Amino acid sequence: MQLFYCPEVFEGSSCLSKEESKHCVKILRKQEGDTIHLIDGLGTFYKVKITLASPKQVLFKIEKTWKEELRPYSLHIAIAPTKNNDRFEWFLEKATEIGIDEITPIICDHSERKVIKNERMEKIILAASKQSLKAKLPLLNPAISFKEFLSKQHLSDCFIAHCEGQDKTSLQSVVSKNTLILVGPEGDFSSNEIERALSKGIKAVNLGKSRLRTETAGIVACHTIALHYEEV
Amino acid sequence: MQLFYCPEVFEGSSCLSKEESKHCVKILRKQEGDTIHLIDGLGTFYKVKITLASPKQVLFKIEKTWKEELRPYSLHIAIAPTKNNDRFEWFLEKATEIGIDEITPIICDHSERKVIKNERMEKIILAASKQSLKAKLPLLNPAISFKEFLSKQHLSDCFIAHCEGQDKTSLQSVVSKNTLILVGPEGDFSSNEIERALSKGIKAVNLGKSRLRTETAGIVACHTIALHYEEV
Repeated sequence: MQLFYCPEVFEGSSCLSKEESKHCVKILRKQEGDTIHLIDGLGTFYKVKITLASPKQVLFKIEKTWKEELRPYSLHIAIAPTKNNDRFEWFLEKATEIGIDEITPIICDHSERKVIKNERMEKIILAASKQSLKAKLPLLNPAISFKEFLSKQHLSDCFIAHCEGQDKTSLQSVVSKNTLILVGPEGDFSSNEIERALSKGIKAVNLGKSRLRTETAGIVACHTIALHYEEV
Repeated sequence: MQLFYCPEVFEGSSCLSKEESKHCVKILRKQEGDTIHLIDGLGTFYKVKITLASPKQVLFKIEKTWKEELRPYSLHIAIAPTKNNDRFEWFLEKATEIGIDEITPIICDHSERKVIKNERMEKIILAASKQSLKAKLPLLNPAISFKEFLSKQHLSDCFIAHCEGQDKTSLQSVVSKNTLILVGPEGDFSSNEIERALSKGIKAVNLGKSRLRTETAGIVACHTIALHYEEV
């Protein structure tokens, strides 16, 4: 199923954006009277009939709407963007495919990359949502320093997946309904950052025995939570 | 810890390959008397002292050897290479990081890419093994057609992660000590291939509720098995 994105769908008649209209008419050669499927990014699917098929503007009429099934958990990953952009984009794509609610890029003491372009990242999240048939897009927050992120109030059960020392609980033994996991940069969180997190009551967790790259740690954390809530 | 690869280490004196010697001396500026660490790709780590540091040939003497801790399971994934090479290389890298024993590229009815270059893939596996501090490299088999792969005898418990229908067991409920998982191409296995697999006694499994890309399915399968054997 091919999905189009339309953040504002109204009863009666609505239209696709310029970009989506072009893709719909020029690339996929959709015509007046054809049925297409939309997501609004907020959790609703629409089956609509095209009433005007111009490459600049596609108008449509809603035929059917339905809600995406909610996940039985919510997951927020705050993760340091990798030096290599591709690796971070790969994390965004895979986390979206597997299922995530919120992503915050955090700038840490050992972060080599401190400038983040959300626009490109949002495109990747949107493409991955469409591809994996998800109607609700994960929320991508603006990048924030680790220190500032910690100073905010977080209502989720919060864990830090740092690599120092051995005596950490495994993430899968502490999964909760509302989980926030902090994943550090290449070179890990600094000792200062780890101390600061622990003093805030954030618990240290491990993600298994292997030494994982930042983006792999993010995916492994995301899938650990997803798997816990899969029906066996 | 920086690891070098040396498939043939002998008591007494051995040498690094030309490529590894160059990296060791030219890039990392190691000198005679320095200590470095090697893997042989078969499961052994070596701590060695450099006795000759030439960019064409590094000679060394073994100071200490130790075996990599064995995983309590063995995992073989037979997976259709993706059309986009990068995506398949991501799978190889991430599966190696998380832990896998054997990978077989399978050419399926719906495969768009039928020519596979093992040399480049082996480099990626080696880099990922070094990076994640693994002494044993996963075995990368030559590409083989799905039909031919099925006709061989496999001693592992064998599963096919196809996307047709709904009534499939979740992979995590059937994890075994020796697991072989088949992952299909973009566009899934053909009905013919699925039938053929089922008639051989291969069980159908699902990898969760999300629609996953080929390479994501491979990683999710790999991590599902790894997580099962993590100490909680």
